[in-house]
Amino acid sequence: MYFGRVVGTATATVKHPSMQGCKLLLVMALQADRKSIEGDPVLVIDTLGAGIGDMVMITSDGIGARELVRDERSPVRWSVLGIIDQ
Amino acid sequence: MYFGRVVGTATATVKHPSMQGCKLLLVMALQADRKSIEGDPVLVIDTLGAGIGDMVMITSDGIGARELVRDERSPVRWSVLGIIDQ
Amino acid sequence: MYFGRVVGTATATVKHPSMQGCKLLLVMALQADRKSIEGDPVLVIDTLGAGIGDMVMITSDGIGARELVRDERSPVRWSVLGIIDQ
Amino acid sequence: MYFGRVVGTATATVKHPSMQGCKLLLVMALQADRKSIEGDPVLVIDTLGAGIGDMVMITSDGIGARELVRDERSPVRWSVLGIIDQ
Amino acid sequence: MYFGRVVGTATATVKHPSMQGCKLLLVMALQADRKSIEGDPVLVIDTLGAGIGDMVMITSDGIGARELVRDERSPVRWSVLGIIDQ
Repeated sequence: MYFGRVVGTATATVKHPSMQGCKLLLVMALQADRKSIEGDPVLVIDTLGAGIGDMVMITSDGIGARELVRDERSPVRWSVLGIIDQ
Repeated sequence: MYFGRVVGTATATVKHPSMQGCKLLLVMALQADRKSIEGDPVLVIDTLGAGIGDMVMITSDGIGARELVRDERSPVRWSVLGIIDQ
Repeated sequence: MYFGRVVGTATATVKHPSMQGCKLLLVMALQADRKSIEGDPVLVIDTLGAGIGDMVMITSDGIGARELVRDERSPVRWSVLGIIDQ
Repeated sequence: MYFGRVVGTATATVKHPSMQGCKLLLVMALQADRKSIEGDPVLVIDTLGAGIGDMVMITSDGIGARELVRDERSPVRWSVLGIIDQ
Repeated sequence: MYFGRVVGTATATVKHPSMQGCKLLLVMALQADRKSIEGDPVLVIDTLGAGIGDMVMITSDGIGARELVRDERSPVRWSVLGIIDQ
């Protein structure tokens, strides 16, 4: 579970069937000052309505992500777990 | 299982239902000198009563974290495993 | 789930039997500017038809990767999840 | 599975019940020269009798670690897998 | 699944019983130029016959590694998945 800032979105026409209709956000890790971002961006599934600029809590848990796309065999892993109050 | 220092807390009004009532801590990895902190902060669930400034043992194990929130399908992963004696 | 650029392919004559006939791509993590690449290359299985230069979404989920090679005991983990629209 | 050097021990009075009686070591990753250590220290469970200064093989596998503490729901993950001959 | 170069071997007399008779290689991550190596060495199980200097494909998948040592409760995780053709 990491702290991140939504910095963009991504669209993929050719993709795994389990991801049809999935909203994909590009998230970067936030440092403890809650301002600086760092490292590689992560692609996460969002069903909570997060938007660009939002500070979010993300998780790499595959079980929860597969639950969101309702496909037990999907290779998805990262999802938005919460939108941090600012 | 990592060594960390609690550096803050986080609140999320919009979040995965399994996290209702969950206490969330912001933890940074501690170096071997038990003083310097480094890297990206991690968000962890705490049920042991750790507070800001405490040195804690954290784990990324999803099975144990889901047990803490009592939801087998929750996407949570990180939790406090112990408070290190100082 | 990460953002990556396909930078090459790899061939292995001696390999785990579950990987016979598998197409292997060498992918590097893309930064948020969608241009710079960084870090260690990852080897991923592709069944979506990605080629060198393509921007792809990759995942480390073992369940999904084993589904692609149709072998429940295969040690594969990374696969291409989608080809990002440019 | 990583190469590490035992650099210390840790004690936690307040901890997850599955860890009662567990010996905890603080291990740092060893480089290929088998001398330099680097990165964040990891906390690992030891049942093989490793001591400070020993070169050990450690693993992040949760299934094996839960077996060591004999608790299927424990959030433990890292354990000593072997003591490297010097 | 990563690209690596075999840089050494390791022997451990004191180890988890599931690893009796296991060949252990020390592997370092290879960069995209297929020449430079970087980061922490990883200890991997090999049953494909890789030797020092070989370029290999390695994986952190525990299910596949446990299959190789034929022990469902073993804490092993990394194994050689293929030897890259040069």
